[in-house]
Amino acid sequence: MLVVMKQGATAAQIDAVCQWIRDKGYTAQPMPGAQRTAVGLVGNDGRVDGSPLEDFPGVAEVIYVSNPYKQVSREWKQETTIVEIAPGVRFGGSEVPIIAGPCSVENEQQIVTAARQVKAAGAVALRGGAFKPRSSPYSFQGMGLEGLKLLKLAKQETGLPIVTEAMDEAGAELVAEYADMIQIGARNMQNYSLLKTAGKLKKPVLLKRGMAATIQDLLLSAEYLLAEGNPNVVLCERGLRSFDTASRNLFDLTAIPVVQQLSHLPIVADPSHGTGRRDKVLPMSRAAIAAGADGILIEVHPQPEKAMSDGAQSQTPAQFAETVVQLKRVAEAIGRRIAG
Amino acid sequence: MLVVMKQGATAAQIDAVCQWIRDKGYTAQPMPGAQRTAVGLVGNDGRVDGSPLEDFPGVAEVIYVSNPYKQVSREWKQETTIVEIAPGVRFGGSEVPIIAGPCSVENEQQIVTAARQVKAAGAVALRGGAFKPRSSPYSFQGMGLEGLKLLKLAKQETGLPIVTEAMDEAGAELVAEYADMIQIGARNMQNYSLLKTAGKLKKPVLLKRGMAATIQDLLLSAEYLLAEGNPNVVLCERGLRSFDTASRNLFDLTAIPVVQQLSHLPIVADPSHGTGRRDKVLPMSRAAIAAGADGILIEVHPQPEKAMSDGAQSQTPAQFAETVVQLKRVAEAIGRRIAG
Amino acid sequence: MLVVMKQGATAAQIDAVCQWIRDKGYTAQPMPGAQRTAVGLVGNDGRVDGSPLEDFPGVAEVIYVSNPYKQVSREWKQETTIVEIAPGVRFGGSEVPIIAGPCSVENEQQIVTAARQVKAAGAVALRGGAFKPRSSPYSFQGMGLEGLKLLKLAKQETGLPIVTEAMDEAGAELVAEYADMIQIGARNMQNYSLLKTAGKLKKPVLLKRGMAATIQDLLLSAEYLLAEGNPNVVLCERGLRSFDTASRNLFDLTAIPVVQQLSHLPIVADPSHGTGRRDKVLPMSRAAIAAGADGILIEVHPQPEKAMSDGAQSQTPAQFAETVVQLKRVAEAIGRRIAG
Amino acid sequence: MLVVMKQGATAAQIDAVCQWIRDKGYTAQPMPGAQRTAVGLVGNDGRVDGSPLEDFPGVAEVIYVSNPYKQVSREWKQETTIVEIAPGVRFGGSEVPIIAGPCSVENEQQIVTAARQVKAAGAVALRGGAFKPRSSPYSFQGMGLEGLKLLKLAKQETGLPIVTEAMDEAGAELVAEYADMIQIGARNMQNYSLLKTAGKLKKPVLLKRGMAATIQDLLLSAEYLLAEGNPNVVLCERGLRSFDTASRNLFDLTAIPVVQQLSHLPIVADPSHGTGRRDKVLPMSRAAIAAGADGILIEVHPQPEKAMSDGAQSQTPAQFAETVVQLKRVAEAIGRRIAG
Repeated sequence: MLVVMKQGATAAQIDAVCQWIRDKGYTAQPMPGAQRTAVGLVGNDGRVDGSPLEDFPGVAEVIYVSNPYKQVSREWKQETTIVEIAPGVRFGGSEVPIIAGPCSVENEQQIVTAARQVKAAGAVALRGGAFKPRSSPYSFQGMGLEGLKLLKLAKQETGLPIVTEAMDEAGAELVAEYADMIQIGARNMQNYSLLKTAGKLKKPVLLKRGMAATIQDLLLSAEYLLAEGNPNVVLCERGLRSFDTASRNLFDLTAIPVVQQLSHLPIVADPSHGTGRRDKVLPMSRAAIAAGADGILIEVHPQPEKAMSDGAQSQTPAQFAETVVQLKRVAEAIGRRIAG
Repeated sequence: MLVVMKQGATAAQIDAVCQWIRDKGYTAQPMPGAQRTAVGLVGNDGRVDGSPLEDFPGVAEVIYVSNPYKQVSREWKQETTIVEIAPGVRFGGSEVPIIAGPCSVENEQQIVTAARQVKAAGAVALRGGAFKPRSSPYSFQGMGLEGLKLLKLAKQETGLPIVTEAMDEAGAELVAEYADMIQIGARNMQNYSLLKTAGKLKKPVLLKRGMAATIQDLLLSAEYLLAEGNPNVVLCERGLRSFDTASRNLFDLTAIPVVQQLSHLPIVADPSHGTGRRDKVLPMSRAAIAAGADGILIEVHPQPEKAMSDGAQSQTPAQFAETVVQLKRVAEAIGRRIAG
Repeated sequence: MLVVMKQGATAAQIDAVCQWIRDKGYTAQPMPGAQRTAVGLVGNDGRVDGSPLEDFPGVAEVIYVSNPYKQVSREWKQETTIVEIAPGVRFGGSEVPIIAGPCSVENEQQIVTAARQVKAAGAVALRGGAFKPRSSPYSFQGMGLEGLKLLKLAKQETGLPIVTEAMDEAGAELVAEYADMIQIGARNMQNYSLLKTAGKLKKPVLLKRGMAATIQDLLLSAEYLLAEGNPNVVLCERGLRSFDTASRNLFDLTAIPVVQQLSHLPIVADPSHGTGRRDKVLPMSRAAIAAGADGILIEVHPQPEKAMSDGAQSQTPAQFAETVVQLKRVAEAIGRRIAG
Repeated sequence: MLVVMKQGATAAQIDAVCQWIRDKGYTAQPMPGAQRTAVGLVGNDGRVDGSPLEDFPGVAEVIYVSNPYKQVSREWKQETTIVEIAPGVRFGGSEVPIIAGPCSVENEQQIVTAARQVKAAGAVALRGGAFKPRSSPYSFQGMGLEGLKLLKLAKQETGLPIVTEAMDEAGAELVAEYADMIQIGARNMQNYSLLKTAGKLKKPVLLKRGMAATIQDLLLSAEYLLAEGNPNVVLCERGLRSFDTASRNLFDLTAIPVVQQLSHLPIVADPSHGTGRRDKVLPMSRAAIAAGADGILIEVHPQPEKAMSDGAQSQTPAQFAETVVQLKRVAEAIGRRIAG
C-alpha cells in the first residue's frame, strides 16, 4: 500500500500517516519526491484496509500495490486449474468444451430434443435454466424443481452433464443434487450468501461476470468460493452494460487473456448473452475461441421463435451445427481442439 | 409494441410478423412509411415478450411502447406513496427524513454513541450494518445477529427506528424481527429470491439502485416487492459504476426527478456511497435535497479513522451536525422541511 | 512514479527497472514488500512517460503519483481564479452568474427576443450557437458568421455579453471578434488544435467536459489553454454518456466539488444538456447550485416547440424566470448570491 | 418516427401532436393501444427532428424508426464498399490487409527500419503519426511536416502506402499530399470541420470510433464524409472507455458484425489501442480476424522500450512476425486470406 501525500503536506501530516501504519503493525517507508512525498506500507499481505487514511490531512490518495485476492491468483498457483465436470469434460486444458442448450427448460420434449440436437452437433454439456432470474416479476420464472428433474432425464437420454443456474442457497442445494455444475448468474455475482453456499457444496461452479463488474470484482467473488474450499471454479464473460443499444451487451473478450494472466482459473465465454442477437453468435463465438476462451456457452433452442425466454439470441440447431464446424477450424488454427 | 421492418422487407415478411402477433391474441396494425414499414401490436398490456420477432426475416428492430412495470408506475397510482417506518418518520411527504449512522455495527459502545450523536444532530432514523456484503471474503463481514441486537439496544436508548441490510432470505427474516426497515443493497438489487422474501415480509424496504441498473431495472425490482403485496418501498440512488476514479461512484442525482415522474414511490439519496469521500458528502447531500430527494442517508462514525469499513466516506459527528444545519436551509429554500 | 513488480520478480528484473530510471536521470528507490517489491522513481515532475516499463519482465504495473497537469492545479495556484467576461460578470467568486439563451441563433427576432427575456429574468450573459456541431450532416448546422452578427446585435440591444461556440481554428478567430467568451464544446474537448488556437487568442474560454472524459482529461485539456498563456478558463459539466436512456446524459454534479478541490479554475454546470429534458432543468439547476457550481448555463427559447435544435431541453421564458427565482433562494441558503 | 403518448393522454393532446406532424408536411397516423396511444409520422425520410414533440403535453417518448444516416447504410448500397489505398491494397474484400508501424515517427532511421520490418513480416501498409493528439500538452506532439516527409521516404524505400493522422483542416491538406490514407482519430470523430475537409479531399479516410461513440454516432460521422462526396471510408474499432482499468480500453469486437450488417463500409480493428498492452495484441488481433474484421492495425516499434509514445502497447518486430503467422491461420479458418 502506498499513501501519496499532497504537494506541500507538512512533516507532521506525514508523521501521522507513518504512525497509523506502525499502529497496525507494519513498517512505514516515506519516499520523498520532487512534487510529493509518498509513504509505503511494507509488509501488507493484501488484507489492510487503508481507506481511513484517505481522509487524513495532507493525504492525496491511497494506492494498493498488493492484490486483494489471493487463492485465485496465478501468483498463488502457477498452473492453470483443470475443472472436470464429468468424465472427460474438462475446462482449462488444451481442449475447449462447448456447453449448449436452451435458455429455459420448458417441457420434457423440448429439453430432451434440445439435448439430442446439441449433442449431435458437438456439444459436450447441456445448459438449461430451471430457476430463471428475470427483470420483470411477470416474466416466466422457470419450472423450478420440475425443470431440474427434466434436465436429469435429458442427461439420462444423452449422457451430457448438466449446467444450470441457482439463484439462492436453497436452490443451490437442489441444483447440486441434480446437476454437474452450478451456474451463478451475472446478477448474483456479488450475492455473497449464495457464493458461500456454493463454495461449501464443492460442486463445480460456473461464475458469470456481473454487468458492471471489474475483473478484480470477478476474481474476488471467485475468491469467496475458493475460501470455502471449492477450487472447481470456471469464470464466464457474458457481456457488460453498455451505452450503445446496437447490441444487448458489450462483450469484453479482452477479459479472456486478462483473466488468464492474473488467475489460474479457466474462463469461458457466452456469446449468446454477450451479443443478444442470434446472428452475432457465430462471429463472436469464433472470436472468443481465437481470443483463447477455455470453453463456449451457446443458447440453442429447437424452435427459437417459440422460446419462452431469450428467443432472439438462441440459435437454431442447424445454426449451432454450422457454428461448431467453424469453431473447430478456428480452434485448430490456434493449436487447440474443440472437445468431443 | 412496434416491430420495425427493414427497408425492402417483403409483403410476406410483414405478413409473418402480423401472423405471429395475431397468434398471441393481439391485433396487428401495419404502418407503411417512406423508408420502412412498422407493424404495431395493439392491446399489449406490458407483458408480451417480442424478442422472438427480433430475428424474423425482414425485421430490423422491436420497440416497446408500454412500460414493463405496472404497480410502481405513476400511471397506476397518481399520488406519491408515503412510507412510514415509525410514528412520524415518513418518506414521500413534504418532510425529508435523514437516516444516519455508521457503515457497520462494531460494538455496543460504538453504535449507541453513534445513535446518540446522530439523533442530537437531527437524524430521525439510525442506519448500521449487521450483515455486510464485502467484495473480499477477507474483509470484515459484519456482526450478524449480535449486531442486530445491538441495533435494537441503540433504538431502546434513543428511540430511533432502525434501517439495516439483509443479504439473503434467512437474514431478511431476522432483520424483519429487529429492524424497522429492511435495506436491500445495490449488489442484491436483482437478487429476486431476496426481493420475493422481502415482499412477503411486508416490512418497509429501502431498495438501493444497482451499480449499473437503469431506472427501469430499479422500478422492475421494486415491482417484485409490490407484486408480493408490499407497497412500503423507498428507492435509493447511491451512485453508479464510472470510468472515472476521481470519485468512488457516479452519483446520478437526475434519477430523483426521473423516478418521481415515472413512479409514485419515494426516492432518497445516499451521498456517502454516491461519492465515496467524506469531504464530498456535504455539497452532494445539499445537491440531493435541492434535486428533490425524499430523504438522505449519511454514514457517520464516532471515529471514522478507526472504522472497520467505509471510514473514508463516513462523516464525523461534528461534520454531520454542520451538514444537517445546511440541509435545513436548502430544504426550506425549495419549500420543504428536514424532518424532526 | 511507482513501478510495482510481480510477486517473484527476480533481482535482475528489479535492477533493470532501476537502471531504466537512472538512465532517464532520476533516482530509483526500491521498496521491498511482503508480497511484492515496488520501485519508486524520485524526482519525477509529472512529465516522465513510464509506459515502456509496463512491459519489462517482472513488472506488474506502473502507478503515477504526480498529476500530469500543472498550471491548472490548486497546488500550483491556491486561490480560485476569477474569470471576468464583461464588467461585473465574473466566474469564481461568491456570486454565481447565469448564462441563458437558445441553443441556436435562428434569426434576428428570435435572438433579440430571447436576449431581452433572459435578461429580464436575471441572466447576466447570453448564449446562442452560430456554429453548431450536429451528429447528422443533415441537421441544421448553424447560421455561421451571420449568427455571430446577430449575437452582437443582441448584445447591443441588451448589454449582455456573448458566449458562443467555436468548432475550429478559423471559427475561433471569428468568434473571438464577436463574442466575450469562446465555448469549446464537449465533442471538441480533445481537439488540441482548437485548444491551442483558443489558448493563443487569450479570450475567456468555456471548456465543456467531453462525454466520456475523466476529470483528469478535462484538466489536461484546460492545461493546453493555460500552457498557451490563457488563464481565463471556466470549466463546464454537461453530462456524460450513460447506459440509461431515462435521461439524455448522466449529469455528474460531483464533478463540481472534485474540480474545486483539484483545480483553481471555476466550474459551471449545464443542466439543459446534462439532463436533456426541459422538466428536469429546474430541479437539476437547483442541485448544481447546491453542489457549489460557479455558474449555470440554461437553454431558453422564446418558443421551444419551434426551435431548430434542442427544443426538448429548452425552457420557456416563463419557466426560466421561475428557475431564477428558485436558484436565488438556493444560492442564499448556501451563502452565495446569483449575480446581477 | 413514432410519438408515444402517456397513459391517459387526452384527445386534444393527441390532436396537437398530429397537427405538428401535418404542419411539417407529413401524415399522422394514430395507433391506439390498450395502455397508450402512439402516433406514427409517415413519410419521414430520416431528417425530421422530433425533439420539440418530446415536451408536448401528454407525450411520453419520441422513437425514431428511420435511421438518421442514409448513404452509409446497407439499405442505401447493398454490396460492401471496396476501399483501395494503393494498387492491390484493398479493404472490404475477402483479403484482409494489415497496417503496421510505430505510434509516432521519431526519426529517419526509426521509421525506415520499422517500415522494412513490418513489410518483411507481412504488413501491406505503414502507419506512423506525424501529428499526435496527446492528452497532455507536455507530451511529445509529433514531428509534424518533417514526420510526413520521413513517411514519404519510408514509402519510397519499401513501397508501402502510408496511413497517418490529421488533427485539423490545415493538417488534413498536408497529410493528403504525403499519405495514401488520412486517419481521423477517436478524439476527433465528431470534429465536424475536420470531417468536412476530409470529405472534400476525397482521399481514403480511416475513421476511428470515439471512446464513447455509439455505432450510430460512428456511422453519422462517416455520413459527413460521404455527404461531401468521399465514398472511400474505412471505419475502425479501437476500444471504448471503460470502468475497468484491467485493460486500457474496452475493445468492442461485436462492433464488427454490427457495422457490417448496418453499413456497406469496411471496418478494421486496432488491438493495440483496443487493449493497450503488448501481450494482449496477439490474442485480440486473432479475435478481431475471427469476428470478421476487414483489416488490422498494429503498432510495431523497432525498440518499444525506447518509444516516444505508446511503448507499452507496441509489439516488437519479432512479436509482430509471429502475430502475422497466426493471423494467416485464423483468416484461413474462416475462409479469408491475409493480404500480401
